[in-house]
Amino acid sequence: MAQGLIGEVPRGLAGVVVTDTALGDVRGREGFYHYRQYSAVELAEHRGFEDVWHLMVHGELPDAAQLQAFTEQAAALRALPGEVAAALPAIARASALSGPLAGLRTALSLFGAAKGFRPVYDIDPERRLADTLAASAVVPTLLTALHRLAQGLEPIEPRTDLSYAANYLYMQTGSVPDAARTRAIERYLISTIDHGFNASTFTARVITSTGADVAACLVGAVGALSGPLHGGAPSRALDTLDAIGTPDRIDSWIRERVLAGDRIMGFGHPVYRTEDPRSRMLRGIAREFGGPLVEFAIEVERQVEAILAELKPGRELHTNVEFYAGVVMELCGLPREMFTPTFAAARVVGWSANILEQAEDSKIIRPAARYVGAEPPTSVPTLDRP
Amino acid sequence: MAQGLIGEVPRGLAGVVVTDTALGDVRGREGFYHYRQYSAVELAEHRGFEDVWHLMVHGELPDAAQLQAFTEQAAALRALPGEVAAALPAIARASALSGPLAGLRTALSLFGAAKGFRPVYDIDPERRLADTLAASAVVPTLLTALHRLAQGLEPIEPRTDLSYAANYLYMQTGSVPDAARTRAIERYLISTIDHGFNASTFTARVITSTGADVAACLVGAVGALSGPLHGGAPSRALDTLDAIGTPDRIDSWIRERVLAGDRIMGFGHPVYRTEDPRSRMLRGIAREFGGPLVEFAIEVERQVEAILAELKPGRELHTNVEFYAGVVMELCGLPREMFTPTFAAARVVGWSANILEQAEDSKIIRPAARYVGAEPPTSVPTLDRP
Repeated sequence: MAQGLIGEVPRGLAGVVVTDTALGDVRGREGFYHYRQYSAVELAEHRGFEDVWHLMVHGELPDAAQLQAFTEQAAALRALPGEVAAALPAIARASALSGPLAGLRTALSLFGAAKGFRPVYDIDPERRLADTLAASAVVPTLLTALHRLAQGLEPIEPRTDLSYAANYLYMQTGSVPDAARTRAIERYLISTIDHGFNASTFTARVITSTGADVAACLVGAVGALSGPLHGGAPSRALDTLDAIGTPDRIDSWIRERVLAGDRIMGFGHPVYRTEDPRSRMLRGIAREFGGPLVEFAIEVERQVEAILAELKPGRELHTNVEFYAGVVMELCGLPREMFTPTFAAARVVGWSANILEQAEDSKIIRPAARYVGAEPPTSVPTLDRP
Repeated sequence: MAQGLIGEVPRGLAGVVVTDTALGDVRGREGFYHYRQYSAVELAEHRGFEDVWHLMVHGELPDAAQLQAFTEQAAALRALPGEVAAALPAIARASALSGPLAGLRTALSLFGAAKGFRPVYDIDPERRLADTLAASAVVPTLLTALHRLAQGLEPIEPRTDLSYAANYLYMQTGSVPDAARTRAIERYLISTIDHGFNASTFTARVITSTGADVAACLVGAVGALSGPLHGGAPSRALDTLDAIGTPDRIDSWIRERVLAGDRIMGFGHPVYRTEDPRSRMLRGIAREFGGPLVEFAIEVERQVEAILAELKPGRELHTNVEFYAGVVMELCGLPREMFTPTFAAARVVGWSANILEQAEDSKIIRPAARYVGAEPPTSVPTLDRP
């Protein structure tokens, strides 16, 4: 081993502690995750998105006056600077093939530049916070505008009198959502703000540790989220429901895939050994809506768990967040291509809190690689250049 | 310690091996770094930029026929898609405050989307390679166009009959550089392609490990490079020369700063305990040019090393890459605000090679954080909402 290297940590740095955090954690064996000292699911059940956003970036839940001030502050940041709005049609056209997260990546990068974001180490904590609020507040505006433009529709201007969640659905659909849909998507968004030290969060913190500006950090995180191993595809689970089609086909369809060694989309999680607490909450939300899709999803879940218990005994394979997240987003009127972008509209708050926490440190995150190639120095062969 | 965590690694993961690599390494105690099995400095002295680009992404130095084919392939990729060229004036205007790397970040993100880049895990190695070549080839085009637009000048179309290095200076200045300047900047660019497992390279590999597309990986890397702790500022060392002004002022100016505990820009390196091999090579290039700036820089180096040896005995403080890189870039006619962007125009090849290597793995890079906040679960306080 070369000088100064600390070797033999698990592949992918699994379990290697890179930082302390006061933002939250996942307890996989207990089926529990939390934001600061509160259960994330309990926060989703009892508080609004702005409450939890305040908790993440200010460190505590707001009182009524703080909540009102914070809600007004964040809502006032939803409108786009003119030069960013003007660039969106071109960004939407260019992103037709690479998808909505490529569009968000570009638009958020442009937004940060247009706002004149400066390196986090060159600005004070208030300015850092302001930059994260500005960037987070426009993510729903950017995502819905890019999606509508891609459909040949005009973007819908944000409203400041709606909650973050209601305004998101409003900009997507053009109509103010009813209370049930607003609270459904709001609980989903809250439950998605953070989830342990995931790859996009880690990316944001690595970039922050160089002192780069908030847009550079968030754009890197959006890039990581766009990777299939991370952002996943809540739409895949719904596609599976479509492919099965009817309740009488569930058993044969699932059994065939499991025996072929295929993964069943929407089942299994690398951390949770019990039921995924997000899945439990989202199933509850789906049940509030009821209807054929929800009944079918619950029946698929029941039969898949029974088949997996029979064919793969001892493995704890339950629905993960993707399964009912897709159902809930579909019930809220979101198109499938907006499922992962909706994830980004919530996670941007978690990234922001992580950027602010990391910026308090001043140590660059820079691990090592072990050289395993041919031993240097080999003398460089000369080449008679044409 | 919580379940499954591996704790007590050094802060910032310093020295923690995250991956094996066949791309190169830095031997700080020996003052030596290499790309694959070759000394990087020797490559810079004996080969062209395209030769080393081929080495990094194909694994071996090209023979004459391979070099010609590769050079033609890469040169043909320099022109921008129309929709990207059309967006550059707006990107340049928006990036006036955040700087040229914010402009590159946005433009490269748009380019990747416009080319329809797909997740690296969804495409074969040939397509991955093609995506990295396309993205790397346009970096000089994007950087020089954005810079000229910011100056109120028209971008200069790339030429396919010039080398990567010559074409870069040509697009920047509007005139074909002479052989001395071409080889000077080419050697600088080659020496900057890679340098161990730096923070932007690590960022690119983390994003790659999620399976994201090549643009997402490169855009994250550009973001990390824009951090002051990473990309640094080769212009700072030159600014120091300006501030000192004349040879008679060197001693008092430097002595005052060192006694005040200030860092002298352009001196000292976290890894090299000997002279930085890049610094030695760049000093040699500067000497080939000669002239008052070079003589002054050499005299400043001589006196600073003497003063540091006197005031900080036992510390090995020599010039780092920033010191003579700035001098060489100035001699080649590059404006100071283009010094760090020029770094990016070389490092993009190193990032590309790292992306291609990482994409062969399929394990997500996802370390852990240790929760140190208040113990959950605390019951969520209710709030009478206004």
